[in-house]
Amino acid sequence: MSVLSPALSETLLARFGDRFSTSQALREQHGRGESHHTPAIPDAVVFAETTEDVAEIVRLCADEGVPVIAFGAGTSLEGHLTAVRGGISIDLSRMSHIIRVSAEDLDCTVQAGVTREQLNSHLRDMGLFFPIDPGANASVGGMASTRASGTNAVRYGTMRENVLSLTVVLPSGQVIRTGGRARKSSAGYDLTRLFVGAEGTLGIVTEVTLKLYGMPDTISAALCSFDSVEQAVNAAIAIVQMGIPVARMELMDRGLIEAVNAYSNLSLKVKDTLAFEFHGFPAGVREQVEMVKAIVEDNGGADFEWANAPEDRNRLWKARHNAFYAVVSQRQNAKGWSSDVCVPVSELSGCILKTRELLIDCRVPAAILGHVGDGNYHVVFAVDPANQTELDEVAAINKKMVQYAISVGGTSTGEHGVGTGKIAYLRQEHGDAVDLMAIIKKAIDPLGIMNPGKILPE
Amino acid sequence: MSVLSPALSETLLARFGDRFSTSQALREQHGRGESHHTPAIPDAVVFAETTEDVAEIVRLCADEGVPVIAFGAGTSLEGHLTAVRGGISIDLSRMSHIIRVSAEDLDCTVQAGVTREQLNSHLRDMGLFFPIDPGANASVGGMASTRASGTNAVRYGTMRENVLSLTVVLPSGQVIRTGGRARKSSAGYDLTRLFVGAEGTLGIVTEVTLKLYGMPDTISAALCSFDSVEQAVNAAIAIVQMGIPVARMELMDRGLIEAVNAYSNLSLKVKDTLAFEFHGFPAGVREQVEMVKAIVEDNGGADFEWANAPEDRNRLWKARHNAFYAVVSQRQNAKGWSSDVCVPVSELSGCILKTRELLIDCRVPAAILGHVGDGNYHVVFAVDPANQTELDEVAAINKKMVQYAISVGGTSTGEHGVGTGKIAYLRQEHGDAVDLMAIIKKAIDPLGIMNPGKILPE
Repeated sequence: MSVLSPALSETLLARFGDRFSTSQALREQHGRGESHHTPAIPDAVVFAETTEDVAEIVRLCADEGVPVIAFGAGTSLEGHLTAVRGGISIDLSRMSHIIRVSAEDLDCTVQAGVTREQLNSHLRDMGLFFPIDPGANASVGGMASTRASGTNAVRYGTMRENVLSLTVVLPSGQVIRTGGRARKSSAGYDLTRLFVGAEGTLGIVTEVTLKLYGMPDTISAALCSFDSVEQAVNAAIAIVQMGIPVARMELMDRGLIEAVNAYSNLSLKVKDTLAFEFHGFPAGVREQVEMVKAIVEDNGGADFEWANAPEDRNRLWKARHNAFYAVVSQRQNAKGWSSDVCVPVSELSGCILKTRELLIDCRVPAAILGHVGDGNYHVVFAVDPANQTELDEVAAINKKMVQYAISVGGTSTGEHGVGTGKIAYLRQEHGDAVDLMAIIKKAIDPLGIMNPGKILPE
Repeated sequence: MSVLSPALSETLLARFGDRFSTSQALREQHGRGESHHTPAIPDAVVFAETTEDVAEIVRLCADEGVPVIAFGAGTSLEGHLTAVRGGISIDLSRMSHIIRVSAEDLDCTVQAGVTREQLNSHLRDMGLFFPIDPGANASVGGMASTRASGTNAVRYGTMRENVLSLTVVLPSGQVIRTGGRARKSSAGYDLTRLFVGAEGTLGIVTEVTLKLYGMPDTISAALCSFDSVEQAVNAAIAIVQMGIPVARMELMDRGLIEAVNAYSNLSLKVKDTLAFEFHGFPAGVREQVEMVKAIVEDNGGADFEWANAPEDRNRLWKARHNAFYAVVSQRQNAKGWSSDVCVPVSELSGCILKTRELLIDCRVPAAILGHVGDGNYHVVFAVDPANQTELDEVAAINKKMVQYAISVGGTSTGEHGVGTGKIAYLRQEHGDAVDLMAIIKKAIDPLGIMNPGKILPE
């Protein structure tokens, strides 16, 4: 049953022409992300090209209380895109204009549909880059909305630290800017941070002003192998505690290396592995590398393999980026299910140990990878979505991981967001603060039309 | 006319004994900060010692609609502490307990009344430090509430980036925790960032969990002199654009150097000056220093004076910290008035040039200093608070500076907050986003009892 009235459909069709669609295939594609969550298809899809388009769609939907769900690159892992109460999927992928780049101020403004790779291609010739890198080629609007981070966060922070301001369409259709271009400001409530991570439940992000960075003068990358995950994690913890400013420090367990070798046609040594990247100027990078080598060796690591040529580095990180797909592709018709806990770094070793115990009897193929410098790691399961026993088994393991992480001061989701997948843990993690979130949601979106059924229990 | 009913006074007296006071002197001290703003004294002061104390006071005040204003170290520069509608000043200075420090996780939790200097004294023996440094020996709760930053922000960020979570007493008296101890999280709305910078208008911060840093292995500091402020600023901009990770980069114009020499009994060369500090490991610091020297010399700077011994560095930065008081002390019975604009770094040179034009005919003693790596700078005026002509003159200059800063994408306040002093500029800076701020305020504090008259126009 569509929640769209015939009148609303006609209005949208008249206004947007063939940018308004109710095709079954298109709606199905818009009702799911990249993971195991059961799809829920929207009643229609509208392709927006401007902030004003989005504002107009939202105003029309608000008049009838019809839900709106923003869609960027479709790479969500926590069910953010499911139209659990029907409504309109607003596809922002055509909002792919890079509006301005300032090399002098190291910032840019882009439309929400610009993807991470598109932005970095554009910046490369200017000697600039945008470091936030969740692996998937996500849209910048989607990354802002899930507070994404990824492999570079240990050095450069997450979307929380790298969004300077946003243009947002509010549930009323009103358009606001949440800030200016100053690097810091104490001028009132931090609306930017309120919308970063709000998953489209308070408004739709249509433009994003980002911090940029000069391409590092010197980049060095390396892999090293350990006999156990624990050794690798202990080395990573020591590196963080020493304050060595590594740019990337990624854990890949031997299972993941196997999957990556197969998927990306590589021949990495099949051992528990840390992958590093160092950014800076020559002497400083050399110094970092030496300190890291000493710590790695103290922790039983060996076999440093360097990847200093850009093409070698790119191959390495592309393989890492494809890790999720590599694990999933090990099994026909499988879907990925990725856990996403993040804990204080001193708890990481115990947490991963606990996780490995949970995995011993698990029949679903799984691998561990993580942004260990931040205390964030994932178990990627290649699950058969048609097999309820498997889904239940993974859900039970995921639940134990989340509960353990929260019990040691950590979080149910380091970077994927709540979506529908983590709602059940929100009160355990935040206690009565969830009521305050609900008050804010109700005040800003009284009709509850913005991506309903996400973040907060209904 | 007190807004406290006799019944409420009696209840507070019975509950808090001599921690409840209506003494005139105490109330006067609590109705002002450190700057020129006209004081407005509260009806009573209560010294809280625990979160539960604060919650109880807020609950009692909520019952009668009586305003509550949090008071930490009293170092506000924008009128945050003025009881413009009367009410209770909740003094948190006795909440000075450092609850826990984790050297392994580089974080700590402190009560809101802990001061910056107290915290760093406590951390020193553990080889740790907390970098956020607004100059004044402010309380951590106050720093969180104004989104403070200061001299180290160019490297370490502001309170926005360095608060992991907060304990907050809401206007209902309910107590919440805004997050855990994970370095990053995507679990719901960013309540931490909502209260950071909210200036006590949404709730009262009673405990703060902060990121810490290992004391740098190697620290180097230097002053260098320029023939003009413009040269100094251009050097600073080039250093930022090169991506050199300086820890501090402070501008002091020649007028400020004169004031600082007199106040702190120093003999710094009376020229426009940049002060640097470099943090890291030996080779990296050496490399940074060499690159900075080259850029400084390219921009006409000279006379590097090094301060590598800890006592020399401490003397230098103590003098810089006292800059505000140094300017004010040049004149008997003067009060300080500090402007606080922050602009994109490419606009900094033009902005300071414009400011210097405005100062040419100004009869009030003034000096320029700034955290130029962030695009943030201050003019400190030593104003006679009894002389309305002077106040008007400074207000007019400040207004022009703010309007210019906003016109180039900057902000009216980089780090001091809105308080009462910047309310008039909020809509110019944020447009209709101010309405959203008001919606949030109304939803969380429907009675309007939390520090009324600050941030938002009433």
